[in-house]
Amino acid sequence: MNAAVVLGLDVGGSSVKYRLASAGSSDGIPAAIAQGTVQTPKKDPVAGLAAIARDVAAGRRLVAVVVGIPGLVDEDRGTVLRSANLPALDGLALGPALSAALDVPVGVINDGRAAAVAEARWGAGAGERDVFTLALGTGIAGSHIVDGRVVDGAHGIAGELGHVVVEPSGASCACGQRGCLETVVGAPALRRAWNRAGGEGSPKDLLAAYEAGDERAVRVVDRGAGALADAILTLLALVDPGVIVIGGGLASAPHRLVVRARALVDERATFHRVPPIVPATLGKWAGAVGAVAEARALHDRSPVALAAN
Amino acid sequence: MNAAVVLGLDVGGSSVKYRLASAGSSDGIPAAIAQGTVQTPKKDPVAGLAAIARDVAAGRRLVAVVVGIPGLVDEDRGTVLRSANLPALDGLALGPALSAALDVPVGVINDGRAAAVAEARWGAGAGERDVFTLALGTGIAGSHIVDGRVVDGAHGIAGELGHVVVEPSGASCACGQRGCLETVVGAPALRRAWNRAGGEGSPKDLLAAYEAGDERAVRVVDRGAGALADAILTLLALVDPGVIVIGGGLASAPHRLVVRARALVDERATFHRVPPIVPATLGKWAGAVGAVAEARALHDRSPVALAAN
Repeated sequence: MNAAVVLGLDVGGSSVKYRLASAGSSDGIPAAIAQGTVQTPKKDPVAGLAAIARDVAAGRRLVAVVVGIPGLVDEDRGTVLRSANLPALDGLALGPALSAALDVPVGVINDGRAAAVAEARWGAGAGERDVFTLALGTGIAGSHIVDGRVVDGAHGIAGELGHVVVEPSGASCACGQRGCLETVVGAPALRRAWNRAGGEGSPKDLLAAYEAGDERAVRVVDRGAGALADAILTLLALVDPGVIVIGGGLASAPHRLVVRARALVDERATFHRVPPIVPATLGKWAGAVGAVAEARALHDRSPVALAAN
Repeated sequence: MNAAVVLGLDVGGSSVKYRLASAGSSDGIPAAIAQGTVQTPKKDPVAGLAAIARDVAAGRRLVAVVVGIPGLVDEDRGTVLRSANLPALDGLALGPALSAALDVPVGVINDGRAAAVAEARWGAGAGERDVFTLALGTGIAGSHIVDGRVVDGAHGIAGELGHVVVEPSGASCACGQRGCLETVVGAPALRRAWNRAGGEGSPKDLLAAYEAGDERAVRVVDRGAGALADAILTLLALVDPGVIVIGGGLASAPHRLVVRARALVDERATFHRVPPIVPATLGKWAGAVGAVAEARALHDRSPVALAAN
């Protein structure tokens, strides 16, 4: 018989990462049967994501899917409450719609949370009790994980470090506030600052220029790292985590933004207890790994799986 | 035989509040056998607090004392790590020293935490799962209490809302940062702002003038309430509590500062989930009530009490 598989999707502003794994549970990281990246469907996200799931499963017996989304989600209902970077998903009952299209249970989870759970369990947070994970990309998602569980507050939205105000008179944020951390060190903000300073290309080019000692790049990166340091100091004052794990595209090797922010946190800390601030180790697949782990858990507790046991 | 009593002390920048209660445990708020206020001993705090304890006990059989301190404490060792507003206590092993002087177990607790535990259990937070309590006074102490337990982070310092930076280029704070919430809405900061605006007297006079519609007072209170609202918005983004309880001298009836801050939080909130923001109900005795409740718990688990059981 065709062995059961589960699928994790990590939906970003421009691309979707997928990871397919066996449905069986294990203590280790779920091994990938298939893994890859496709373009984010912008117009009809339900049909687009269903097509991706069918393509990836490629005839295998798919039994559960979990979709990581950059935004606020209602996990119990599988609804996207608000996605600043993917407005087509705003208010969408993605879980039920995708479940109807694929005829399997579908869960929806915040992308930062998916990556955080994976990083805390199998990545840079492995072995730590109290982990705060941060993903620096188009948006900035944070998750606080204590004893393996996400501490998400009374309404499920705790950990929004990207929307801590660091420049009270700063730029308008998609969330409606001014001067959120995302308006300084989110990828689009860094790109704008770099282009305004006369630099060419993307934040990746900015970080390469910084690495090469370009003075304009140093100024832009320093401002971003300083804003990140200020937000982290606020996090230390309010949450006081045991380790901070920074992942996402902007934190990839050689981790210059993380290294500079860590130096500025050390420089600016006063009463704070500065924990280790380390780069994520699962890399860009953390979100998909977390989603596939959640898909296994969803399958384990789904009525069909229970009936089969 | 002389019935056993426990003492709670709430040590402030200018005065010490005490509450004496029977050592027996109960579900309700510990009833006061004696309660009052004396001046804070500035020069020799151990001798001074021991003298207060002896005076208050007045010959009764004292079996445990807990001291609430405005600053960072190491509860396990009974040591004051840092007290910006009571520098004489900085680094002092207050618990062991006072225990030696009085020959009873002595615990040391953060004052905001003592008040918070009491408010969450018997005050405005009664019945709520997830409570963030804030004390506005000389300093600003915050505590997050979930399921009756203080969530104090990996190093025991979480909840320091008073040291969230709200004005990045603002005034120097005793903690070493610039523009902490305390530098805008702590009592000394409010007094300075009020006096600079031409107002006479203390923050109490400021709030009375605000109540009477004095335009200078409105400007000063609005700036303070605005800073408080900004810090609360940061708290909502990172911690997302179920209810915020605001106590301390500056929050006393008719709660104008709380009411104004709540209105500004409602006005400025975007993605946040704004919880009820309510005045504390235990009043200025919350810290002493929390300390006396902790003293009962300390007595219950002390070797002498265990041997007697």
